Amino acid sequence: MTIDAAISELSQVLGKRLSRSKSDLEIHGRSETHFPLTPPDAVAYPENTDEVRKIVSICARHECPVIGWGVGTSLEAHALALQGGVTVDFTRMNKVLSVNADDLDVVVQPGITREELNHELRATGLFFPVDPGANATIGGMAMTRASGTSAVRYGTMRDNVLALEAVLADGRVIRTGTRAKKSSAGYDLTALLVGSEGTLGLVTEITLKLSGQPEAISAAICAFDDMDTAVNCVIATIQTGIPMARIEFVDPAMARAFNLYANAELPEKPHLFVEFHGSEASVAEDILRFRELANDHNATGFDRATRPEDQTALWKMRHSAHYASQALRPGKRVLVTDICVPISRLAEAVEETRADIAAAPFPGTILGHVGDGNFHAELMFDENDAAEVKAVNEFSERMIDRALRLDGTSTGEHGIGAGKMNYMAAEHGDGWFVMAEIKRALDPQNIMNPGKIVRVN
Amino acid sequence: MTIDAAISELSQVLGKRLSRSKSDLEIHGRSETHFPLTPPDAVAYPENTDEVRKIVSICARHECPVIGWGVGTSLEAHALALQGGVTVDFTRMNKVLSVNADDLDVVVQPGITREELNHELRATGLFFPVDPGANATIGGMAMTRASGTSAVRYGTMRDNVLALEAVLADGRVIRTGTRAKKSSAGYDLTALLVGSEGTLGLVTEITLKLSGQPEAISAAICAFDDMDTAVNCVIATIQTGIPMARIEFVDPAMARAFNLYANAELPEKPHLFVEFHGSEASVAEDILRFRELANDHNATGFDRATRPEDQTALWKMRHSAHYASQALRPGKRVLVTDICVPISRLAEAVEETRADIAAAPFPGTILGHVGDGNFHAELMFDENDAAEVKAVNEFSERMIDRALRLDGTSTGEHGIGAGKMNYMAAEHGDGWFVMAEIKRALDPQNIMNPGKIVRVN
Repeated sequence: MTIDAAISELSQVLGKRLSRSKSDLEIHGRSETHFPLTPPDAVAYPENTDEVRKIVSICARHECPVIGWGVGTSLEAHALALQGGVTVDFTRMNKVLSVNADDLDVVVQPGITREELNHELRATGLFFPVDPGANATIGGMAMTRASGTSAVRYGTMRDNVLALEAVLADGRVIRTGTRAKKSSAGYDLTALLVGSEGTLGLVTEITLKLSGQPEAISAAICAFDDMDTAVNCVIATIQTGIPMARIEFVDPAMARAFNLYANAELPEKPHLFVEFHGSEASVAEDILRFRELANDHNATGFDRATRPEDQTALWKMRHSAHYASQALRPGKRVLVTDICVPISRLAEAVEETRADIAAAPFPGTILGHVGDGNFHAELMFDENDAAEVKAVNEFSERMIDRALRLDGTSTGEHGIGAGKMNYMAAEHGDGWFVMAEIKRALDPQNIMNPGKIVRVN
Repeated sequence: MTIDAAISELSQVLGKRLSRSKSDLEIHGRSETHFPLTPPDAVAYPENTDEVRKIVSICARHECPVIGWGVGTSLEAHALALQGGVTVDFTRMNKVLSVNADDLDVVVQPGITREELNHELRATGLFFPVDPGANATIGGMAMTRASGTSAVRYGTMRDNVLALEAVLADGRVIRTGTRAKKSSAGYDLTALLVGSEGTLGLVTEITLKLSGQPEAISAAICAFDDMDTAVNCVIATIQTGIPMARIEFVDPAMARAFNLYANAELPEKPHLFVEFHGSEASVAEDILRFRELANDHNATGFDRATRPEDQTALWKMRHSAHYASQALRPGKRVLVTDICVPISRLAEAVEETRADIAAAPFPGTILGHVGDGNFHAELMFDENDAAEVKAVNEFSERMIDRALRLDGTSTGEHGIGAGKMNYMAAEHGDGWFVMAEIKRALDPQNIMNPGKIVRVN
């Protein structure tokens, strides 16, 4: 078999750093959500770009699939070896290569996690702001174009990756972008690779923009009578130009889940969580102005978190949403959806989704990065009950139909992976075929994470 | 001839809106800078996407080059028909198709200019912030990935184009992106097309992010003893997190040119022009904090422009830089360079450039979007003097060598066009070949603006 031939050659290069142990294969065959175990044929642990180049070159010679792996937090099975092959685990490539404090940038290897990076940066007065909740690797975040709670202010991985080094399907190592903050020098290969989920190459070095740690942070939470009013409050805040660092929505079911899981005492109503970053004076002004707008929208229970420990508690609760949702129905699988719509359509999209959950045979919660128009539903379903599996899949399809009908996208931040391939034609039309043409041009053998994003046959 | 066959067929579709008049051909053969007159074989004036589709389809059938044209303000000869063919002038496709005020977005046709768009938006409380100085079309700005003075706060066209409709080389019409603020749904075709200079397709519809008109604006100008100190003041401002809307540098020669051309009374020293956007309270705080930093860097002549008319005068002077430079040596050609480096290397890059100008046989000025590390030198040379032409070309090459040596890019915002093709290999290495592979996949006949960005043969 071609895969076996590749593995045997890889063993000679990597020695013990090519693993075929059952436990290793299983760890790299798992997913955070509802996809079945899909182990690869081997796991490689490269230590530098040249080893990645060798791995890809060997796999190219044998037409063996190559799949990148960070820490396995992706939600759409991006890193599963659907057609077998070699999973490249970047654990050993997790260094900060250089911090350029004056330029607000940092060069890292892909295997470093978001929290490790911010830990390394703590003495510099700078931080990397993109925060998807999970402690994902920077490589994984770049490849899925991740974002999260802070995107409303700091942008997504699209906005925060300045440059890349990548190994292409034929073993060429390219550098895209530079440390300059902007460029008009030809096609934006950095942007093409960010979000490409390892289907065009493996990223081996990433240059990120950094932000200054805010001098002051102010956060608050408040409740609203209904979804519409909460969203209108967000729209008013955006229109007024109050610079939010985060603005998060949770629905009444999610509030209830926090009460149960995190001992919160929230009324079972729609809530907004907000945070402002700036100078002492500016965050004080921001929160006052936001509070006025919230009052205009009949908000209740306005609770300001000024002390760092209160802010940490607030966001810890918010980031526990996945586990809090899961605890509503322990032991069951969770399907996490992820759509994004223009904010003017958000209330409509969330209301329809709530009605859909109310009619479903399983519980569900809704939470969202509401400043971006992005929200998730988490659905706790019984994977052994065929009727529930059918219902959850139909629910998921309706979510995407809803997103596209309301001028939105099938995924705001989780990516396509294996989970959302079926909706690419509906979302992109001929654009999906253009993606396949690009894929064929750069990976004619279809060895880079095959079966994700595009269909090439 | 194949071009003649295409033109004859196009005449049947477009009637009088296919022009071959000498004056029309010459207008579309001109450039703002030093490139020689290069008229196309015909100029087409489509009125809608379907006509653009027909134009491209006919040209594809006859292998006739197709070149997009906005208002001809590009500086690197992007829109010149180097291999003949049909120039597609988007003058008649200049409408605002929809304003979505709640979502802070607008859908426009490519032929609308920046100023026309902002005029249309004036009653909405919103504006389109990207400001390259020239009153370029939105289509042209998207295709060159333009930016300008406000990019330090509002980003470039890369950051402000949400979605596109484009006609590809085979006549397919695709839509990339949606009105959702972010997406992880596959390859970022929007980002691939932005900055592609019409080499992958013609853009027929553009969805842009808008920003709220700031409640208050505050601007100021001040002088520094030397370049190093001015740049260090900028770095300190960025590090402190003071949110600048614009921060512009001019060198002593440029200050002198403003004095002569715009009756300014600036000391012949390096200057910074700054502007802050926000609430009355926040801009007042911002300018105070900036003034403290400027004082720390021995700034002199701090002059605050609070009244709108003073601000307009300030930025009118700044935007007259090209003509003010030209007036230093009337009647001569101007070469405008455009490099961008990490800000920590900016002082070095500018100092080397000043020394280079001092040794040159022609006058030159330096000005820059210093918050981005982007700056221009304008060189007034005698195109009829072979020695000066040689000197200016060598100067330009040294600029780019300098940019690449200092971790930067050969163009921050002007693009490649015909002017900077020779440096693509040095900047991108194998990445340049990857660009050609993408071009070949999407435009196998090489009819879309051939001779720009990539070499495909």
